Amino acid sequence: MNPIDLIAKKRDGEALDPEELKFFIDGYVRGDIPDYQVAAFLMAVFFQGMAPAETSWLTRVMRDSGVVLDLSNVPGFKIDKHSTGGVGDKVSLVLAPLMAAAGLVVPMMSGRALAHTGGTLDKLEAIPGFRTNLSIPEFEKQLRDIGVALIGQTDDLCPADKKIYALRDATATVNAIPLITASILSKKMAEGIDALVLDVKVGSGAIFAEPEKSWELARMLVRTAREFGLRTTALLTSMQQPLGRAVGNWLETREAIETLRGDGPADLVRVTLALGAEMMLLSGKMSDPQAAERHLSGLLHDGRAYAKFLEITKHQGGDVAVIEHPETYPKAKHELAIRSRAAGTVAAVHSREIGRLSMQLGAGRTSVDDGVDYTAGIYLHKKVGDAVTPGDVLCVAYSNEEARLQEARPRLEAAFTITPSEVAGDPLLLGRIDFDGETRWDEAGG
Amino acid sequence: MNPIDLIAKKRDGEALDPEELKFFIDGYVRGDIPDYQVAAFLMAVFFQGMAPAETSWLTRVMRDSGVVLDLSNVPGFKIDKHSTGGVGDKVSLVLAPLMAAAGLVVPMMSGRALAHTGGTLDKLEAIPGFRTNLSIPEFEKQLRDIGVALIGQTDDLCPADKKIYALRDATATVNAIPLITASILSKKMAEGIDALVLDVKVGSGAIFAEPEKSWELARMLVRTAREFGLRTTALLTSMQQPLGRAVGNWLETREAIETLRGDGPADLVRVTLALGAEMMLLSGKMSDPQAAERHLSGLLHDGRAYAKFLEITKHQGGDVAVIEHPETYPKAKHELAIRSRAAGTVAAVHSREIGRLSMQLGAGRTSVDDGVDYTAGIYLHKKVGDAVTPGDVLCVAYSNEEARLQEARPRLEAAFTITPSEVAGDPLLLGRIDFDGETRWDEAGG
Repeated sequence: MNPIDLIAKKRDGEALDPEELKFFIDGYVRGDIPDYQVAAFLMAVFFQGMAPAETSWLTRVMRDSGVVLDLSNVPGFKIDKHSTGGVGDKVSLVLAPLMAAAGLVVPMMSGRALAHTGGTLDKLEAIPGFRTNLSIPEFEKQLRDIGVALIGQTDDLCPADKKIYALRDATATVNAIPLITASILSKKMAEGIDALVLDVKVGSGAIFAEPEKSWELARMLVRTAREFGLRTTALLTSMQQPLGRAVGNWLETREAIETLRGDGPADLVRVTLALGAEMMLLSGKMSDPQAAERHLSGLLHDGRAYAKFLEITKHQGGDVAVIEHPETYPKAKHELAIRSRAAGTVAAVHSREIGRLSMQLGAGRTSVDDGVDYTAGIYLHKKVGDAVTPGDVLCVAYSNEEARLQEARPRLEAAFTITPSEVAGDPLLLGRIDFDGETRWDEAGG
Repeated sequence: MNPIDLIAKKRDGEALDPEELKFFIDGYVRGDIPDYQVAAFLMAVFFQGMAPAETSWLTRVMRDSGVVLDLSNVPGFKIDKHSTGGVGDKVSLVLAPLMAAAGLVVPMMSGRALAHTGGTLDKLEAIPGFRTNLSIPEFEKQLRDIGVALIGQTDDLCPADKKIYALRDATATVNAIPLITASILSKKMAEGIDALVLDVKVGSGAIFAEPEKSWELARMLVRTAREFGLRTTALLTSMQQPLGRAVGNWLETREAIETLRGDGPADLVRVTLALGAEMMLLSGKMSDPQAAERHLSGLLHDGRAYAKFLEITKHQGGDVAVIEHPETYPKAKHELAIRSRAAGTVAAVHSREIGRLSMQLGAGRTSVDDGVDYTAGIYLHKKVGDAVTPGDVLCVAYSNEEARLQEARPRLEAAFTITPSEVAGDPLLLGRIDFDGETRWDEAGG
């Protein structure tokens, strides 16, 4: 077998068979096949796609490139959630302790900030002392002890994905459905979970700006998971505007804490409960989604989800006092309020732009080795459907560098669209796909 | 400027502007932009193409990546020929001395065997002692002295093309019209020539199997050359079957010698004279193509073209005795005659397959550093339109390794199609493109 022939085969729209994919991916991980041949292959996949079976084979080869965890020594129903990435998406920080409080086991492995979206690991590490690099034995012990652990992907899990992901990022080949599918599922299946819930974002701030591409991705994810017998449900949720009001690492962690104390923004709570209810259904612990949501909402209000978050923080070395007194956390040195010049209603908050601006204020990194500014970000005071009069604060931007704020100002102003006319609400829950089929919700239903 | 953004731009079908192309290509030559980003870019070009203006800009950036020769100290009209690559294509070996004998100056830079096609340099180096690595001052001196020199591309000419070509070869991105165009023309324009004749091959053994793609390539070549004011004519010639009877380095050199002595195969002579006549027209020395062909044919028959070839060989250190007595050249250790099993007419000689087999018998290299077996190759005793009876020799294969011959046998047999019905002749000259337009010739005209 010859890498050039395999690139040419994909370039010409043919499917690679399992042996060919194994040769190519294993050869890359071993260093026998160079970056540039894989880069050309990834771009060919971008244009030619992959057949569903081929996507499964790729997923399997990538999963098997490293250790596959065996959590059979951890009692309980093990489940994880994955989001395709949104702006202000701090759902994991709320959902993981919530589901552990509900009696499920949540072995959650997350990533770092990327492009215009933040990363769960960065948000957790905003808490002083919080360790996300637990060893696998520490990870398993914590799952046995408290039913949940929030860590980064370890080096021995899916090395193929790690290498390919970095290459995709550097070669403009991130947005290819088979590659996204194999990347997500290979990692999740290496975690040794029993079931998976996916939050596939739809809209301008999502990985694909075109809604139909998000549906296509969700379908491919569920279909591929099925091939492996991994019980999986995908919810399609709106990323037309950021989720909640906070964008930026500590700002988001703080909003997650408020949510765990029963005081979260409505959209964040809604998405979290909907995903949580799907987890309850998959676990078999409950069968009625409405009842499940009510039950989980109770756990957010009676302090049990919050208590679990404190437990996680303590177990992972984080400073619990900061969680209990978030007002003591250091503030960014500079802030800038953006005010409305018009009267009317907010018609759009451009989430991709808000995400990018937050990164530029210091919340993101330009290279893998950069540090992030935990206090930088944007807090939205107005969201879609809110009435505004001239002078109202639309958002406040935070940064430790004054110059970055001034630079961001015109783009922050342009990130809000104000209209004199009425604005229809932004439907939040758009649909659902599981092994049995798919449902699209209209605005009323969503 | 960021390489990822430029890859994404091309991926999404947009044209890069001159500054962007300069940033990308110069960055690659300097080593600031890695192979893998250029590989992804090349694959994006494969799918999205390039606008004509963009192709010109790329050509210019590549030409200007190294030295551009100034041959103004060499008197005479300087002209070169480039072929897009065919099987058995030894035209350069005949044409270069022929045109020098006709009074033109031919500063010819050629390449090595690649994929299924041979390389002029390898054929020349089959002559013991023949040096193709003249320095630029040696090259210029020889042009002044005898009006022709046949050398390889020097390291300081078009370094961008050298790097990109190697990468295209390793990433299945050779067959993209803008990349082929920029590669050919950047090199030819760096030679400092006054005009150029292109032999664009059409048919199953050509770079593109689809005839229309060859026309498209020829059009883009002539159009781009025009942007630079380089007078250029392209002939489209058939590569449905190999040109002449010899395929393989020394076998082809020997056939070229025979042709220079007035005893060449009809198709090789025809293509050589047609290309030569275009050169005469471009130089302004003659204006009637028929008269030009007659004049050049005379030079093949009166010994003047042959004498020029001996001069070249002597100047470049080659063994003239071998040219004068080709029968003294060492033979391959083993040979294998392939005989017809059927009676009828040869309907096809699959040139791409013949080319590949010749390489596998030892005439080609699998990596840039490999040596080649000058005596290996295939001599065709029958060509399209020839009548055969069972037992007739179709071809003889030569190799220094018996095992390679036996391995090649079934594919050699399959490379000939014999039919009981009549076979229309294979039209050789298919069309012509210059700055004024294009002409397609029908069988009778061709």
